Amino acid sequence: MTNPTAAILIIGNEILSGRTQDVNVQFIAQRLAELGIKLEEVRVVPDIPGRIIGAVNELRAAYTCLFTTGGIGPTHDDITSECIAAAFGVPWVLHEETAEVMRAAWGERVNAARLRMATMPQGAVPIKNEASIAPGFTIGNVHVMAGVPRIMQAMFKALEPELPRGERIEMRAVYGIGVLEGSIADGLGAIQDRFPQVDLGSYPFKRDNKWGVALVGKGTDVAAIEAAIAEASALIAAQGVVPVPGEPG
Amino acid sequence: MTNPTAAILIIGNEILSGRTQDVNVQFIAQRLAELGIKLEEVRVVPDIPGRIIGAVNELRAAYTCLFTTGGIGPTHDDITSECIAAAFGVPWVLHEETAEVMRAAWGERVNAARLRMATMPQGAVPIKNEASIAPGFTIGNVHVMAGVPRIMQAMFKALEPELPRGERIEMRAVYGIGVLEGSIADGLGAIQDRFPQVDLGSYPFKRDNKWGVALVGKGTDVAAIEAAIAEASALIAAQGVVPVPGEPG
Repeated sequence: MTNPTAAILIIGNEILSGRTQDVNVQFIAQRLAELGIKLEEVRVVPDIPGRIIGAVNELRAAYTCLFTTGGIGPTHDDITSECIAAAFGVPWVLHEETAEVMRAAWGERVNAARLRMATMPQGAVPIKNEASIAPGFTIGNVHVMAGVPRIMQAMFKALEPELPRGERIEMRAVYGIGVLEGSIADGLGAIQDRFPQVDLGSYPFKRDNKWGVALVGKGTDVAAIEAAIAEASALIAAQGVVPVPGEPG
Repeated sequence: MTNPTAAILIIGNEILSGRTQDVNVQFIAQRLAELGIKLEEVRVVPDIPGRIIGAVNELRAAYTCLFTTGGIGPTHDDITSECIAAAFGVPWVLHEETAEVMRAAWGERVNAARLRMATMPQGAVPIKNEASIAPGFTIGNVHVMAGVPRIMQAMFKALEPELPRGERIEMRAVYGIGVLEGSIADGLGAIQDRFPQVDLGSYPFKRDNKWGVALVGKGTDVAAIEAAIAEASALIAAQGVVPVPGEPG
């Protein structure tokens, strides 16, 4: 079975300016792995219509699904929704049902700016969520979510039942504290060759002023991942270091 | 004066799997703002040659400079360096001077895997750094750095004197705690219209269970940024909320 694929498009001047540390990618990436959807690309673009529209059309054509974060609030810099309409070549129209939900919740405070959050590409389906009145929306294979992490997470949760599924992408790791990558590289390459169905990665880190390496196996074939990581553990042990098993991903 | 532009390319299965939280983008973004270089795009791609080569060639053509992070270690999954050579259409060759530095530092531990870290696209100039023996490198307008944050930061520091400069990109912010974006959106849009040279952003947040909004002005014209933020403060005050000035960026 081939896993569905995905990309994330972050629409965010605040990420590009360094003002905000993105945390949405890691959240979405981990959830997608559970669902068996392979995250294959992330892009961050500024709040410029041409850049958003171009990226949306490129990424929605290349992957099974595209998740966007950011730019769906009520202010002048929130232009994602209009840009998605332009990318799909459909009108950007008031979604009456959503406007009604807003009027019920906010009464007279529903002004023109807030109604922008009820305006969507024609044919879009709202992504209702527990964290906010204003929804995200899905059109085609594009899922448009907020940038604020707690709202994005609520939207993702609401969206999950609608997403395609694949075989769950599993991860196992083993740590060698005091092991240098360069000393085990050959052996590790040989393990990768023996287990082509496992995506075997090597990630150095420094902890308590000591270098170490995390060897990580990833894929859908758990038996192969565990066999590869057992061999990686033996490689660490052969360096005279006790291998520390990692948490299952 | 037009600011130089930049993109970051993260070569990182570990980011796409959700195993690792990227922190390099924020570091580089903040440093680039200081240097007056406008970060206009970030991409994350997997450790697949065609994906790396394609992204490198697209991004180096589109921006003044491209920074890559990740994939320059000694293991089988470290393929960035070869891919950069392929992107430039030049041979991938041992950099003798770097090999000498390694032999001096590591002696007999310099094996074939470690020599991969001294192998570079022909014509590349090493980026020496305080944190590691193995360097990054620059070729054309592409700066190739490690993925491990402390090594990347040391490489960036070594690289800084070589980078183009522009007018410093300044940031000022004001916070309205208890202010909802939808209530000030019209006024904020009018301020943006009055200060087209300022990039005015609105970012909602929740703190102590209360929604608030950060209004952020960005650009190279400090007087205009400060005037726009003064007007934004007045907008917050008009909501009956005391505006809280943000730290200068």
